[in-house]
Amino acid sequence: MGAMRALVFQKPGRIAWQEVPDPVVGDPADAIVRVDAVTICGTDLHILKGDVPDVTAGRILGHEAVGTVVETAGGVRTVRPGDRVLVSCISACGRCRFCRESRYGQCRGGGGWILGHTVDGTQAEYVRVPFADLSVHPLPDSIDSADAVLLADIFPTAYEVGVLNGAVRPADTVVVVGAGPIGLAAIVTAGFYSPGRVIAVDLAESRLAAARSLGADATVNAGEEPEQLVADLTDGLGADVVMEAVGVPEAFEMCTRMVRPGGRVANIGVHGKPATLHLEDLWIKDVTITTGLVDTSSTPLLLRMMAAGRLPSSSLITHRFELGQMEEAYDVFGRVEETGALKVVLGGA
Amino acid sequence: MGAMRALVFQKPGRIAWQEVPDPVVGDPADAIVRVDAVTICGTDLHILKGDVPDVTAGRILGHEAVGTVVETAGGVRTVRPGDRVLVSCISACGRCRFCRESRYGQCRGGGGWILGHTVDGTQAEYVRVPFADLSVHPLPDSIDSADAVLLADIFPTAYEVGVLNGAVRPADTVVVVGAGPIGLAAIVTAGFYSPGRVIAVDLAESRLAAARSLGADATVNAGEEPEQLVADLTDGLGADVVMEAVGVPEAFEMCTRMVRPGGRVANIGVHGKPATLHLEDLWIKDVTITTGLVDTSSTPLLLRMMAAGRLPSSSLITHRFELGQMEEAYDVFGRVEETGALKVVLGGA
Amino acid sequence: MGAMRALVFQKPGRIAWQEVPDPVVGDPADAIVRVDAVTICGTDLHILKGDVPDVTAGRILGHEAVGTVVETAGGVRTVRPGDRVLVSCISACGRCRFCRESRYGQCRGGGGWILGHTVDGTQAEYVRVPFADLSVHPLPDSIDSADAVLLADIFPTAYEVGVLNGAVRPADTVVVVGAGPIGLAAIVTAGFYSPGRVIAVDLAESRLAAARSLGADATVNAGEEPEQLVADLTDGLGADVVMEAVGVPEAFEMCTRMVRPGGRVANIGVHGKPATLHLEDLWIKDVTITTGLVDTSSTPLLLRMMAAGRLPSSSLITHRFELGQMEEAYDVFGRVEETGALKVVLGGA
Amino acid sequence: MGAMRALVFQKPGRIAWQEVPDPVVGDPADAIVRVDAVTICGTDLHILKGDVPDVTAGRILGHEAVGTVVETAGGVRTVRPGDRVLVSCISACGRCRFCRESRYGQCRGGGGWILGHTVDGTQAEYVRVPFADLSVHPLPDSIDSADAVLLADIFPTAYEVGVLNGAVRPADTVVVVGAGPIGLAAIVTAGFYSPGRVIAVDLAESRLAAARSLGADATVNAGEEPEQLVADLTDGLGADVVMEAVGVPEAFEMCTRMVRPGGRVANIGVHGKPATLHLEDLWIKDVTITTGLVDTSSTPLLLRMMAAGRLPSSSLITHRFELGQMEEAYDVFGRVEETGALKVVLGGA
Repeated sequence: MGAMRALVFQKPGRIAWQEVPDPVVGDPADAIVRVDAVTICGTDLHILKGDVPDVTAGRILGHEAVGTVVETAGGVRTVRPGDRVLVSCISACGRCRFCRESRYGQCRGGGGWILGHTVDGTQAEYVRVPFADLSVHPLPDSIDSADAVLLADIFPTAYEVGVLNGAVRPADTVVVVGAGPIGLAAIVTAGFYSPGRVIAVDLAESRLAAARSLGADATVNAGEEPEQLVADLTDGLGADVVMEAVGVPEAFEMCTRMVRPGGRVANIGVHGKPATLHLEDLWIKDVTITTGLVDTSSTPLLLRMMAAGRLPSSSLITHRFELGQMEEAYDVFGRVEETGALKVVLGGA
Repeated sequence: MGAMRALVFQKPGRIAWQEVPDPVVGDPADAIVRVDAVTICGTDLHILKGDVPDVTAGRILGHEAVGTVVETAGGVRTVRPGDRVLVSCISACGRCRFCRESRYGQCRGGGGWILGHTVDGTQAEYVRVPFADLSVHPLPDSIDSADAVLLADIFPTAYEVGVLNGAVRPADTVVVVGAGPIGLAAIVTAGFYSPGRVIAVDLAESRLAAARSLGADATVNAGEEPEQLVADLTDGLGADVVMEAVGVPEAFEMCTRMVRPGGRVANIGVHGKPATLHLEDLWIKDVTITTGLVDTSSTPLLLRMMAAGRLPSSSLITHRFELGQMEEAYDVFGRVEETGALKVVLGGA
Repeated sequence: MGAMRALVFQKPGRIAWQEVPDPVVGDPADAIVRVDAVTICGTDLHILKGDVPDVTAGRILGHEAVGTVVETAGGVRTVRPGDRVLVSCISACGRCRFCRESRYGQCRGGGGWILGHTVDGTQAEYVRVPFADLSVHPLPDSIDSADAVLLADIFPTAYEVGVLNGAVRPADTVVVVGAGPIGLAAIVTAGFYSPGRVIAVDLAESRLAAARSLGADATVNAGEEPEQLVADLTDGLGADVVMEAVGVPEAFEMCTRMVRPGGRVANIGVHGKPATLHLEDLWIKDVTITTGLVDTSSTPLLLRMMAAGRLPSSSLITHRFELGQMEEAYDVFGRVEETGALKVVLGGA
Repeated sequence: MGAMRALVFQKPGRIAWQEVPDPVVGDPADAIVRVDAVTICGTDLHILKGDVPDVTAGRILGHEAVGTVVETAGGVRTVRPGDRVLVSCISACGRCRFCRESRYGQCRGGGGWILGHTVDGTQAEYVRVPFADLSVHPLPDSIDSADAVLLADIFPTAYEVGVLNGAVRPADTVVVVGAGPIGLAAIVTAGFYSPGRVIAVDLAESRLAAARSLGADATVNAGEEPEQLVADLTDGLGADVVMEAVGVPEAFEMCTRMVRPGGRVANIGVHGKPATLHLEDLWIKDVTITTGLVDTSSTPLLLRMMAAGRLPSSSLITHRFELGQMEEAYDVFGRVEETGALKVVLGGA
């Protein structure tokens, strides 16, 4: 049994790129994937801080990767050794009630978000991927690994939980509150439906600049009366679709004030506290509010869009590293206010 | 110019059935309707208490009626004197952005909820109905006036804001929190989609009994752990659809705890205070929450259902009065805990 | 290796209930099921006549069953020996593009309609079920085997291809052309959506009587101007939804004449010849026409409806046999005009 | 009473730009519009040939215009003299069952396609517009009249009957059969949903060139095996959405062969003859076929898209004339094979 290197969670505040045993297949649906490119998610930083108690000491982190299949167990049908694949952040048993409705994120059969959470993850030289048939996606040669790795989590999250739940339609006024990586991916994928106007809101001018370069028609600093701007641009009516991509009560509450009668608020942010829902204003307003964990059911569509050259994911990548520079990459990604990092990608060159 | 009798709001706490001038047509879209049957809404009680400041002294109350057209102005095309009609609680200009999408409740062209609110209403011998073409509905002979008057507000409200927003589907587990007239109408109209199980929650045993008689499969007192019952009946998963038909924060918050991942919470209740939205639990749960004012866009469908004998509205009528007994009817409807009133109907015999 | 009895296709016009080897597991996703109840489909009669050239000599027929799992291969997760299950007429790989969208009938991964077609089927004492996890459904004790076997094919076919594709809504006028087993199942399941009126059309008075007993509001002999009746009942407008459950050009063309502007024609019938589509009339009429093979994606919902007592399938069963009376059952089902057979069930007592 | 000039249908084969009386208001919903820009539709050529018997001698033709309101009757609320407006090809009573569902093309209250058909039309110096509130649309200053006139018919037709009925989604393979003005408008508006690939089919190389310039990713001559190209580009599966924009049986039948299982065929073409529907192939294929007359319910959305600079309509305009050059414009538009005309616009400079 061989050994490899991986990023191991040791205790809150402490991770290390260290030697661990190679993963082995343990179930007929498993595949072993050699990791070629990987990224770090905001959730990984929460784990590092100790905010995700399900993650225990010794766990290899990471739930996003592009790699090459090196071994498959007997029940795997759709990939084989040598295939270059995207490893999705969501694993899907494919059999439970939720998987049958493509709600893989809610899988009750052992899947869901498990990689780098309840089983060892992708920030490693090799990873065991459970339920491989529905949890990896073969990649065409035309797609670059570093680009593709952003389809493991942030693009499907932004598209499914933001754009599809928000039901963006042509000519809509769309507001995205929060222009971090997820908010930026929401701006990009909202464009699939030709909104009339996309307005980005954030506190950081650098993120607003990124939003403009990725297609936002207007941007406004969160401290400079974004609600007034939205009202002005919509004859006082409000936006058709508002997406929350921050994860704090104030941002969510702002979203519910910005939406027009009959409009939709799509929450993408990960929240740790309750928000106030002003039903005394909203009960009469025909508003729809949605929440959701990504299912990655849209990944095949996003791959087709990327292959067609219609998904400019690489503009979200601000920093590149070798796989072995994992600790350095965490450091850069963790000090976002200084480094301006959006997405960091390791490997994939 | 003649005189008639009408129920006039005088000041908070004071209404009177008194003589007032007959209404007259004042716009090409107006119709004058002689009122044959009318009912009292919970909202009328709020007005009486002074909770609806837009209603000023001298206003004739009431936004639900069945009557006979006695006069139409020059722009009215679809009804004429002699037609027996339902007067909807929502008036629709038919021209604004919202009316074009059948969101009449959000009308920006002078309609919406105006009768008995910003213009004189239906609790009178005669009423002027603005935008008559889209605001009254001709009635077939087979439909009884007392039954039909419940289609002016509570049935479309329950159906549109509860059942359609909740997207009830066959075999669903549906919970209705609040078994007053609106909640009961939601139970009845949820039945259009053959849910597998409808569970009613209320504090009053008499209302739960009414719920059972109207089709609820299970009932539970709000004080006796309804959440546990829902969990037990759904293998711990939660309900597919939960409707809030009370209008208090505690009821709404209970609804958000009862819904399954991927489910829907449809708020029907009129709220005066904010609720707490537990986004720290809900963000990951794929939940859809809707609010809404009735549009009465479903009234033609509900009329067809009633004509087909599939809408047992009369079981909601607990008390009948003559039109002139308006003050007595308010008294009975206002003391619901003693009288057990669900809906009171005046006239229509 | 043991032996069992099974209904074997020998050549066009010739089948026999004869001894054959027991089935054995050959793939990690296989299950072996002991057949407790089985039925015969109209398609089996087509095979018997030689109309389905993919079915070769030696093939065991049958694609519908209820049985008990006796063995599972290593990749099967959701059932185990001893489980009583419904064997669906459609097998689903669960991995291909179509299975991911729940279009199991179009499976490209080796599934689809294979049982009794390209692999041995269910009219036998034992059957090997490929892709068992997505192709069998555990049955609760409360559901009778003879009832459940009708959920293997005709109920999901009628519901998915007729009612769901037809998008039946409350108060709709629905016409079902053809009141054989599938048409009757369409009448029953259309009822889930509370149509205002269901009209059945057939040539056989006995089938029209069955239609009335299963919920049709009106029936008309196909030779007695059904189009005129539909026009009369709809003020000349036409039906909201028309389902074709015969499979001949004349019936399909009648459907397209009966539908109202904006309405839907859902084809359920299996056709062997082209029909004429009168685009010179239809191009302007806002009509939607759908076709489809069953996916059996609705089976879990139908099972919940049956468990809730809302799916009266047993009224479709006209004849019962022992499993060993297979040839006699084929004879009765094949002489439908004399025997009046709707569905025959073997076993399940 | 004044006089004006208008294009009058005299008998099949004969039209004249001649003096006629000015139009006058005759109904409370009428408006009189001075025509600033107008275009000619393929349907006008059919009328000229005598193919539309409802059009009688003396009728002023034309159902598309941009103009300025000069008079409104008493029931008109949303426009007033001086407003610059788009005159839609569809008039809508706003009250009938179909108008309430935004199916204005099927209006039963006196609207639908009436201008230049059953009442005098827009190819004139002035036009009376019935049901003005729902049949004209105020134009912002930023929209050019010549561009806007294409929103009267061809853009909403292509978008509603082709793109919306076809349900184009991101990454889809879309085939448009027929690259005349309607087909080109379908290519443009399909782009609102970011298809992965749009393939245009036509017999004329000049139209295929226009298709490429308007966004088609591939083009193929109808004589050069377009079905093979579609199969090659889709791994043999077929296109997600196929639109028929020709109006002949062969084109429609080709569409039904090109569509993938589970795909949609949206017929936009005006047909004069029946087509053959190969149900023996299609019954099993999960295909949806739609037909439709434009409703112009999408006009507000298209106007917002045009105002946002996202609807390049002017590229469809190949010839410009003065209003008085009506006969010359008909000549150029009628000899399309020689002139290469797509859309001709009169006035609007």
